[in-house]
Amino acid sequence: MTDAPLRVGLAGLGTVGAGTLRLLRENAELIAARAGRKIVPVAVSARERMRNRGVSLDGLSWHDDAVALARDPGVDVVVEVIGGADGIARATVEAALAARKPVVTANKAMLALHGAELAAAAEDAGTPLAFEAAVAGGIPAIKALREGLAANRILRVAGILNGTCNYILTTMRDTGRAFAEVLAEAQAHGYAEADPAFDIDGIDAAHKLAILVALAFGRPVDFASVHVEGIRHVSALDIAFARELDFVIRLVGIAERHDGGISARVHPVMVPAASPLAHVDGVFNAVMVEGDHVGRVMLEGRGAGAGPTASAVVADLIDIARGRHTPPFGMAAHHLSAEPSVPIARRVGAAYLRLMVVDRPGVIADVSAMLRDHVVSLESMIQRGRAPGATVPVVLTTHPCEEAALAAALTRIAKLDSVVEPPTMIRIETL
Amino acid sequence: MTDAPLRVGLAGLGTVGAGTLRLLRENAELIAARAGRKIVPVAVSARERMRNRGVSLDGLSWHDDAVALARDPGVDVVVEVIGGADGIARATVEAALAARKPVVTANKAMLALHGAELAAAAEDAGTPLAFEAAVAGGIPAIKALREGLAANRILRVAGILNGTCNYILTTMRDTGRAFAEVLAEAQAHGYAEADPAFDIDGIDAAHKLAILVALAFGRPVDFASVHVEGIRHVSALDIAFARELDFVIRLVGIAERHDGGISARVHPVMVPAASPLAHVDGVFNAVMVEGDHVGRVMLEGRGAGAGPTASAVVADLIDIARGRHTPPFGMAAHHLSAEPSVPIARRVGAAYLRLMVVDRPGVIADVSAMLRDHVVSLESMIQRGRAPGATVPVVLTTHPCEEAALAAALTRIAKLDSVVEPPTMIRIETL
Repeated sequence: MTDAPLRVGLAGLGTVGAGTLRLLRENAELIAARAGRKIVPVAVSARERMRNRGVSLDGLSWHDDAVALARDPGVDVVVEVIGGADGIARATVEAALAARKPVVTANKAMLALHGAELAAAAEDAGTPLAFEAAVAGGIPAIKALREGLAANRILRVAGILNGTCNYILTTMRDTGRAFAEVLAEAQAHGYAEADPAFDIDGIDAAHKLAILVALAFGRPVDFASVHVEGIRHVSALDIAFARELDFVIRLVGIAERHDGGISARVHPVMVPAASPLAHVDGVFNAVMVEGDHVGRVMLEGRGAGAGPTASAVVADLIDIARGRHTPPFGMAAHHLSAEPSVPIARRVGAAYLRLMVVDRPGVIADVSAMLRDHVVSLESMIQRGRAPGATVPVVLTTHPCEEAALAAALTRIAKLDSVVEPPTMIRIETL
Repeated sequence: MTDAPLRVGLAGLGTVGAGTLRLLRENAELIAARAGRKIVPVAVSARERMRNRGVSLDGLSWHDDAVALARDPGVDVVVEVIGGADGIARATVEAALAARKPVVTANKAMLALHGAELAAAAEDAGTPLAFEAAVAGGIPAIKALREGLAANRILRVAGILNGTCNYILTTMRDTGRAFAEVLAEAQAHGYAEADPAFDIDGIDAAHKLAILVALAFGRPVDFASVHVEGIRHVSALDIAFARELDFVIRLVGIAERHDGGISARVHPVMVPAASPLAHVDGVFNAVMVEGDHVGRVMLEGRGAGAGPTASAVVADLIDIARGRHTPPFGMAAHHLSAEPSVPIARRVGAAYLRLMVVDRPGVIADVSAMLRDHVVSLESMIQRGRAPGATVPVVLTTHPCEEAALAAALTRIAKLDSVVEPPTMIRIETL
């Protein structure tokens, strides 16, 4: 180990970049002791030089071009916190790896879409590509999967991976308010972006799940194989019924090993109120891992924000300073195996169904018969009150059944005259 | 990195030793991929050669003497899972370090009592001393504190660190049964040792907390500075009152940074029923860490058993095979600082008090006056029913107060004629 300082070039000065600068300065002495050498920011790059970010840029060299920063011979390691799957972020990471410089990135979109190529480039260059900050913010989930639980064959990974969605769902449950209203409030508080699609449509969570799948199952990252649904269609009514059934609704990413391959999906889930995931509230994230020897391990903490994300970025820098080197996805690329993906249609599990029906005799009989025709058996049914001729909700929960069979039954049910809205289906998981 | 296999000598063939052998064999291919080379058990040592342990010892060289195993030139790394703070376990570890061989140990008692000297010996030898398995079994808590959260100044570490105690307290709550009865059942099930003192008197949890304190606060391990109380005196009555007050009783280890130094204590705690620690049931363990940038991170999983402990042992072996090297307590010995210990008498916090009093007029007035004299203010009081002249429980909860003041008040209260048993005090923590 050398005693020379590790010189950091920081590409991007948004929330995470500024937080990383602040952390490296505030805890400089402690970080040097833990890293065995000083870790010193020396150069930065961002779009606007003059913007006030609450951190001083004194003593740092400035690059208008992040790619030039990556190539700066005075920079030993490049921290990429620009964001975006392509463009300048990707060019910066590629330039750093080409120069055989270690890279630390928080960029989940880039890793989900180009992680396999970037990992190969890092391996060819013999240099680390580290991304603890890309998944679940300050929770050391990447390190846990890649190192702490490395002795295990992983059977399942599941997690609450998007704080915005979890905040919205938690607030909807606590207040009984509607999705759109809570989303607007989250935007006002800065918990949701002006353009929230990335979060609420599940894409951000799916990016993170794609990375976890690669680590957990030793497969090259494959975003396209992740089934994605968001939370736009979760209604206050469903949340109220979930409570009545002793469930909590969460946006969950789940990946599992099956006989025929690996399944990976992000969608709203009803978990039992006693599940550890049901207690993960607000902007918190959680990652649950099941290994063949260790059993179930759960990690919980803040999934976003300047402090938690900077904590993860600097942990990666300390690993690099110490010379602790691991292939990006935990094993050399030639060990990664392209196990087949199991599509969502082959899921076997229970489900919650809500139908808006005209309250008249025979509706339940018709619905039940169609479910029976597709070998979907019912576990419970709720129809509150009577309102002859009016529209009322009917809630059904099924025993575990095949997704494809349930979908076929729902297609037929949706065509019934007395069913006046497309049926709502939320999967039940006993996580 | 070399491609040569890492040759493991296993000292101790109890539950953990046999589990480690089984794991290394079952997942050999996966482990080799994650470690970048094969990890192969080559030699073992235990007291009885012929005992059936459910694992084959074929192909392994046998040493009657674990110290000889440590010196065996065919052994690259020594796994010590014998147990016991001194004697053969310590001699084996010292012999391995003297031979500049990496050591992996699950021995919390040895680390709690001799960790500082052993870490210095490892540092002098320039070789790893790894002990993920010593704290919280399969949960990668050591790695999280030492690496994953290394950028943070740690403010507090708290945890449920003994599965036996947690199983007993959980079962007492679920069944309403008495401590002695549940302990006997736990012994019958193998969840508690024939001699349970080590677990139920809090010593095992305190050993683990002493190790966490060293890692979290950069201090040489100092077991003597940990305040320890066990769970023998937790009664079914207190558990019932806890439920009424919306608390759960857990044996918790807590270490905190104060202005004047570091406090570390293990004792029964009442945590709010909504606390994450209140949901950690049965034999599960949890470690909660609060860092200045990351906020609160919690890790939960199985704290004992062959599989989880072997998972941690083999994770350490993979680190060693990969050449990932960290000083035992996260930083070089000369960076560790002997910050002063803050004694339990200086704790400031709320408390639950249960007095067994003769039901007659004036008792509450006397007790309240004595608490007031010591500046202890009351938050709530419960006295159920009336039974003039008979003994009844009176339950009080206090606002935060100084431990020393409360203790002085309780000493006086205990001397009241109408108080017929020594008062019960359980600290309340809003973890």
